[in-house]
Amino acid sequence: MSNTATAPLPPVQDDEIEHVALDEDYVLTASFVEKVVDASDAGDGLKLRSLLEDLHPADVADLMGFLTSEHRAVVVLWLPPDLLADTLPELDDGIREEVLERVPHLTLAEALQELDSDDAAAVVEDLEDDQREKVLAAMPEVDRAAIESSLGYEEDSAGRLMQREVMAAPQFWNVGDTIDHIRKQGEELPELFFDIYVVDPLNKPVGGVAISRLLRAPRVTPLTEIMDPVNEITVDQDQEEVAYIFEKYHLISAPVTDAAGRLVGQITVDDIVNVLQEENREDILRLAGVSDEDRGSNVAEIVRGRVPWLAINLATAVLGASVIGWFEATIQEIVALAILMPIVSAIGGNAGTQALTVTVRALATRELNSSNAPRTFWRELAVGLANGMVLAPLIGIATALWFRDEDWRIGLVIAAAMVLNLLVAATVGVLTPLTLSKLKFDPAVSSAVFVTATTDFFGFLIFLGLATIVLT
Amino acid sequence: MSNTATAPLPPVQDDEIEHVALDEDYVLTASFVEKVVDASDAGDGLKLRSLLEDLHPADVADLMGFLTSEHRAVVVLWLPPDLLADTLPELDDGIREEVLERVPHLTLAEALQELDSDDAAAVVEDLEDDQREKVLAAMPEVDRAAIESSLGYEEDSAGRLMQREVMAAPQFWNVGDTIDHIRKQGEELPELFFDIYVVDPLNKPVGGVAISRLLRAPRVTPLTEIMDPVNEITVDQDQEEVAYIFEKYHLISAPVTDAAGRLVGQITVDDIVNVLQEENREDILRLAGVSDEDRGSNVAEIVRGRVPWLAINLATAVLGASVIGWFEATIQEIVALAILMPIVSAIGGNAGTQALTVTVRALATRELNSSNAPRTFWRELAVGLANGMVLAPLIGIATALWFRDEDWRIGLVIAAAMVLNLLVAATVGVLTPLTLSKLKFDPAVSSAVFVTATTDFFGFLIFLGLATIVLT
Repeated sequence: MSNTATAPLPPVQDDEIEHVALDEDYVLTASFVEKVVDASDAGDGLKLRSLLEDLHPADVADLMGFLTSEHRAVVVLWLPPDLLADTLPELDDGIREEVLERVPHLTLAEALQELDSDDAAAVVEDLEDDQREKVLAAMPEVDRAAIESSLGYEEDSAGRLMQREVMAAPQFWNVGDTIDHIRKQGEELPELFFDIYVVDPLNKPVGGVAISRLLRAPRVTPLTEIMDPVNEITVDQDQEEVAYIFEKYHLISAPVTDAAGRLVGQITVDDIVNVLQEENREDILRLAGVSDEDRGSNVAEIVRGRVPWLAINLATAVLGASVIGWFEATIQEIVALAILMPIVSAIGGNAGTQALTVTVRALATRELNSSNAPRTFWRELAVGLANGMVLAPLIGIATALWFRDEDWRIGLVIAAAMVLNLLVAATVGVLTPLTLSKLKFDPAVSSAVFVTATTDFFGFLIFLGLATIVLT
Repeated sequence: MSNTATAPLPPVQDDEIEHVALDEDYVLTASFVEKVVDASDAGDGLKLRSLLEDLHPADVADLMGFLTSEHRAVVVLWLPPDLLADTLPELDDGIREEVLERVPHLTLAEALQELDSDDAAAVVEDLEDDQREKVLAAMPEVDRAAIESSLGYEEDSAGRLMQREVMAAPQFWNVGDTIDHIRKQGEELPELFFDIYVVDPLNKPVGGVAISRLLRAPRVTPLTEIMDPVNEITVDQDQEEVAYIFEKYHLISAPVTDAAGRLVGQITVDDIVNVLQEENREDILRLAGVSDEDRGSNVAEIVRGRVPWLAINLATAVLGASVIGWFEATIQEIVALAILMPIVSAIGGNAGTQALTVTVRALATRELNSSNAPRTFWRELAVGLANGMVLAPLIGIATALWFRDEDWRIGLVIAAAMVLNLLVAATVGVLTPLTLSKLKFDPAVSSAVFVTATTDFFGFLIFLGLATIVLT
């Protein structure tokens, strides 16, 4: 995403133009969206264009998310070409694919030339094979080469994320040389940049100078005197890794080097903000058993992403049910057990999910690793025990009173079963994500299913087992 | 947090110093942590200092997270004062409070003067009242005033987040005036900055110039000619709101204004990265019913944060159990129902959590608002129906076969109950967070409990109710 200091229209002011688009929270107003819908229903292209032309590309992308597929088609038709170009990198994947199918390849080839290399590559990536070929063929050699080289890197790698435009300076320059060079180069530099990378004769970065520091130093100061060490990112690093480094060390930009250590591009923090939000979104959805869906997804796509997890849950629920089946005779004798058993499994499931979520989050932020894993485990076990000490008396006494006419000892059984199942919950809640992470699987993906399956299984087993021993 | 282009030690190289601290993932190695533990156990202060002095403050903060409270106490004692100052803003809240209790107030007063006003305020905020008074009293008037004014703003507001150091230029200046001013001012400017704010005679921002643009323009160019409109942040805006604006419009820095519209500070994107991560962390933990805990929390603090949600879950589980109680007679007659009923509620709970999580996330990113809420609701209902169409036959046929000796129609009952409960799940999964958000509650906090309580309740009611009608 290209950095931009350009601001959108300010939010609502009394004396603003008639069709104010944004409310005070910088969200498109329902009445503005309605106007767009009405204009596109009426096929009123001029009205549409006047509504859209002053929007920030990020707001156009938002608008697309609020529209139906039919309305989007009309809007795309009437978006000014420049605005369309800037909007493309802002769109959700699903919506972008749909929009791209509707844009003629010559229009697209022209639009892409306006974008930074990383943004252009992100758009081209989403094109169908034959459309991609046509679009690339219609672009000037140099732009095509930049995009093709960017697409040559793996998805989600630093190479994909970086922009090739970068401000480098030889290590023998001083501040004056650098400022003069920048003033002369003008157009060939990145549109916005924050650090100058000092490179050796082999084009390997040896340091970085923040431009606010450059501005402050006397013209005769050698760059090597004011430069700081830089965190080099290599083209094949995973974007999650890169985001971690930016976040941890509060970086604004970082140089990207190829396998030989030569400077080939830079990554800026605004791209990292997107990566962080994307990774967070994935984690939160994966924990809930949802994969790959966005607001552009249709019902079939959503169901494809969710049904597999529900099916796996169904299988584990059947497993839990079969445990209950083992105790059919006991339940036949004491129906109260059937009434109470979901309580034991539900609390186990909740406590397990708490432990699991905390662990997954700590792994994601690298607060948890092999040096403190044992301590984390014992702490969770202590938490499980303490939770049990608080909750078991509550449910034990309530149950003893509820079923006092049948057998008050059922309160003892449920209290003991709850404590034991909370220990099971703590154990699987910590160990499942730790193990998955050790095996290089994403702990957010399948931990939840396994944890609740285990707490269900043991919840039923412990409660009904104890009941069989004590009460029958 | 102050911006810094300074990089930490690069990761492991063969020819590095003996005690390499970071592995290739920029995480402290277990062997390094062990060395610190050994040195502090042995009370070897010089060894400790030599291990610590070359670490980046972010890595010292990480180290603290991996240590026990006793080892932290020793480490704090031997940290070089400068490094201690820079480390304080990086620490987790719980650990910071603990560390602050151990630092003499004069040392602290000196350390805080080295920090930018936002970082210093964040540290002072965590001091106990009497310690805070002593520390502030020991600071120079100007630094104390800056901190007190920062603490005068509400927690989590833009006023708290901003730094007061900012580069402003009158609107009649040209590029040359500005560069000369920056070179002369030196020390009074922020350590790093990215945009220059152009202000009118009342000190109200009228535009912004990225410094890379300033560098590129001829010296005679008036600032007003190259400035862009800026997104003004007001001191009382919530940090979540500010983060949204930064993320949406890819901002690197933004001016902060007081109620009268005068420039009083700036917020930079590296602070926003922290805010985003904090908000994401809160959302993901709250969805799992965990509040306010970090790696510095002890067992009692963790239990206090988790037990309330488990207790509420216990209450709703009892409610679910009482529904089962209504059908005691039916279960006595057909024990298979007790075996099967958790399957219906479990799948409902999972599907409800999926719908809920997607909705909470869409609300957090403002992809969902009143203009597309109805469409989202109908889409989720369609997804629920489709999920049911896939899963119900599976469980229906399996159940009919499993209980063919008793009554195959039990398969029909469970299939119908599952479809109905998936519709319930979709409905509450979407409407609960939407309603909470409409009522200005945080939808992440209590949605999950309510959704699973509802799917349990209706899961049991529908399944056992249908069974009573059809099978008895």
